[in-house]
Amino acid sequence: MIVAAQPAGFADVRATNLAVVLRHVRGNAPCSRADIAAATGLNKATVSILVADLIRRRLLRETGPSGHRVGRPSTMLGLDGEPYVAVGIEVGSDQLTAIAVDLPGTRLLSWHRSFADHAASPGRAVAAIVALARRATAHLTRQGRQVLGLTVAVPALVDGDGVVRHSPSLGWHNLDLHGELATALRKPDYPIAVDNNANLAILAEQRYGPYAGPANLAYLASDTAISAGIVVQGHLLRGSRGFSGAIGHIQVMPDGPPCVCGRRGCLEAVAGIPALIRRALPEADSGPRRSDLAPDLQEIQRRAKANDPSTVEALAETGRWLGYGAALLTNLLNPDVIILGGRFAPLAPWLLASAEAALTARAVAPHAGGCRIVASTLGAGSAALGAAARVLDQIDAGHLPEPSSSAAHPRI
Amino acid sequence: MIVAAQPAGFADVRATNLAVVLRHVRGNAPCSRADIAAATGLNKATVSILVADLIRRRLLRETGPSGHRVGRPSTMLGLDGEPYVAVGIEVGSDQLTAIAVDLPGTRLLSWHRSFADHAASPGRAVAAIVALARRATAHLTRQGRQVLGLTVAVPALVDGDGVVRHSPSLGWHNLDLHGELATALRKPDYPIAVDNNANLAILAEQRYGPYAGPANLAYLASDTAISAGIVVQGHLLRGSRGFSGAIGHIQVMPDGPPCVCGRRGCLEAVAGIPALIRRALPEADSGPRRSDLAPDLQEIQRRAKANDPSTVEALAETGRWLGYGAALLTNLLNPDVIILGGRFAPLAPWLLASAEAALTARAVAPHAGGCRIVASTLGAGSAALGAAARVLDQIDAGHLPEPSSSAAHPRI
Repeated sequence: MIVAAQPAGFADVRATNLAVVLRHVRGNAPCSRADIAAATGLNKATVSILVADLIRRRLLRETGPSGHRVGRPSTMLGLDGEPYVAVGIEVGSDQLTAIAVDLPGTRLLSWHRSFADHAASPGRAVAAIVALARRATAHLTRQGRQVLGLTVAVPALVDGDGVVRHSPSLGWHNLDLHGELATALRKPDYPIAVDNNANLAILAEQRYGPYAGPANLAYLASDTAISAGIVVQGHLLRGSRGFSGAIGHIQVMPDGPPCVCGRRGCLEAVAGIPALIRRALPEADSGPRRSDLAPDLQEIQRRAKANDPSTVEALAETGRWLGYGAALLTNLLNPDVIILGGRFAPLAPWLLASAEAALTARAVAPHAGGCRIVASTLGAGSAALGAAARVLDQIDAGHLPEPSSSAAHPRI
Repeated sequence: MIVAAQPAGFADVRATNLAVVLRHVRGNAPCSRADIAAATGLNKATVSILVADLIRRRLLRETGPSGHRVGRPSTMLGLDGEPYVAVGIEVGSDQLTAIAVDLPGTRLLSWHRSFADHAASPGRAVAAIVALARRATAHLTRQGRQVLGLTVAVPALVDGDGVVRHSPSLGWHNLDLHGELATALRKPDYPIAVDNNANLAILAEQRYGPYAGPANLAYLASDTAISAGIVVQGHLLRGSRGFSGAIGHIQVMPDGPPCVCGRRGCLEAVAGIPALIRRALPEADSGPRRSDLAPDLQEIQRRAKANDPSTVEALAETGRWLGYGAALLTNLLNPDVIILGGRFAPLAPWLLASAEAALTARAVAPHAGGCRIVASTLGAGSAALGAAARVLDQIDAGHLPEPSSSAAHPRI
C-alpha cells in the first residue's frame, strides 16, 4: 500500500479538515454537504461530522433547502461566524483608525481618532491606542460579540515579536509595542499582534478587494509614510526578519529634498502625501507631522476636480514618482498588479496616467511585464481592515474558536 | 474517519513518495530502509517497495551493511544516479560555458568556448549553442550516460515558453530560443529549457553552494550583464511572466554613463564588468561587446594583489555600486544573504568591504536587516551549473527517469 508521506497527527488532520470545509463554504456558499465532499475529496460521513462541529462552533449554519436541484433537496450551508469579530487599529501620522469586522466580512465599526499630538511620545501613543482598543472591545462585547484578537498596523519595520524596530515617520525605534499593549490592556483574553501597515493593507486586498485573484501583487502607499506590501504566489513576502517592503526610503533623487529618515531624496520625500501638499498647496503648513491632513487633501481634490492646472500638475508629478516606485517593484518582482492605496486611492484619477507612463518608461520588461497600476477600492483604513483580517486568517489556518458563553447566548 | 483532504491519485502519490525517499537519501545517505521509514512516516513495507523501484531505476543503490549499530546490521542505501546526466550551457557576452553533472553531483565536463563573434547575430549564436550541446551530448553518450535534459542560461528576460523577450547585453529581443534550439537539435529525446542566468545561478547555490540554508537569499551579478536571482522561503521568485530580478537596468545615477539598454546610469552601466575595466584599465578597449574579458580581469586581479592604489579604488567603487544594488534587494526583500557571483566572485576580496558599507548606509532596516554579502564559491559558470541543476530538480519533483538500454548496460 502506498500512502501519503508525513501524515499529520489526528488532531492536526481534524483541524486542517475543519478549516478546509470552512474555507470551501466561505468561497462557495450556499453549498450542500455533498458539494463539499465532491470538492474537497473528503467522504460524506466525514463532511457531516465536520459540518456538525462547525455549526456547534457557530462558524457555519444551515440556510435552508436547495431550491433548484433534481431529486431530494439538500440542506444548504452558509457562513455563520457572526459571534466572532476581529479588531484592527491603524496608526497613521495624524489619526488612529479602528475597524472591526465579523467573520462573514461585515464591518461593525469604523472609527477615526486624532493622533498627531501623541506621535511624539510613544507612551502617549500607546495610551491612545489602548483607549481606542478598550472602547472598541467594550462596544463589541455589549453587542454579544466575541473579540478574537487585535492587530495594530504601524508604518514601521516590525519584527516577528511585534517590536517596532524602525519608524522614520513616527520617530519610533526599538519600541516593544506588542509588550506595551499587552501590559496596558492587562493581558486580555484575545491575542494581540503588531504588523507593518502595507503588509496588512495587502492582506485586506487579498481577502476583501477585487484584486485578490492575481498570484503576484504589490501594494504601494499608506498614510503619509510610503511602504510596499508584496504578495508572491499568493503569500505575503516578509523576508528573513519581517523587514520587507521598505521602499519609501530608497533614494530616488540624489541630493533631493530632506526626508524624515535623515537621508535626502527618498521616495517618500518626493512621492509622499506631505510632499504633494507642499507641491499643490505651497501656502499650507508643510511640517512632516501635521495634526490633520484631511482638509488639505480635500482641497487638493476639489481643485483637481475643477481642473486647476497647477494642482493637476502637482498630482501628475506625484504620480510620476509613484510610477518610479512601481518600476522598482516591477523590475525586481514582476507583479501582475500594483495597488495604489492609503491616502492616494481617492486621488488616483489624477495620479494613474503619469504613474503608468513612468512605470512603462522605467520597467526593463516590455509593457512593464504586463503589470497594471490600479487604485484600491477599500477606502480609508485598509490597513486597519487588513489588521482585522490577519486575526480572521488564523481561523482559515485551522485555529478555530469556541463560542464563549456570552457569545453563544447573546443578549436578547 | 477523518482523512486528509484532497488526496492525490494513486500514481501521483507513488511518484511523490518515490521522490520523498530519493530526496531523503540524497540528504542523509548512507541510511537504511528503517531510517527512511522513521523519517518520512511511510511504513516499512511501503519503503521497501519504493526502494526496490528506485534501485531498478538506478537512482539508489545498496552500499553495504551498517557497521556501527546494535543488533542485526541493516543494508545501507546511497545515491546512484550515475547513468543520468544533465547539461547546462551558459551564454555569456564573450563565451559559452557547458557543464554536465550527474545526479550525485559530479561534474563530468566543464567547457568554455569563445562566443563574442556570434553575439551580434542570433542565428550564429543558436548554431554555436547547438554545436556545443551536440558535442557535449555525444561525449556523454559515449561514456554510457543518459542525458536527461538541456537548459540554456541567458542574460535576458525569458518567458515561460523559453522565448528571450529582452536581452540588452546580447541585443536579442523576442527570440524564440527554445524553438530554434529544438529545431536545430532535431527534437532530441530529452527536454530543452531556456531560463534567466541569475535564476539558474541561484538554483546552483541552493543545490551545491554553502548558502543553501537560508530561506531568503538573492544572487547578484552574472557575466557582464547584472541581474538578480531571488529565493523567497526556499522558492525561486519568478513573477507573473518570469521577468523578475531585472535589477541591472534600474537607474542608479541620473544622467549617468550610457547603458547598452539605451538608458543612462543603469546599475549595470556603473557596476558591471565593462565599467570596472574602463575604471581600472582606462587604456583597455572598453566596448560593451568584447571578445574576451578574461585577460583584462586577470590583469585587474594581478594589480589588486600588488595593492595598486588606483586598481584597489576602482574595485572599491564597483563594490559601492554593487552595495547599492544589494540595498535595493534588501529594502524590498530583506534576504538573509546576497551572493555575489559570476565574474565578480574572484574579485570579491576587493569588493566586499565597500559593498557592505554601501549596503548598510542605504538599507532602511538597522544593520541591513541582518543581510550579509558573500562571494559565490561555485567558480565560473555557476549559471551553467544551475542550468544542469534545473534538469535534475525535475527528478526531485517526481519526474523519475527510466534507464535506457544503453544506460542500463553501460560499456564495460
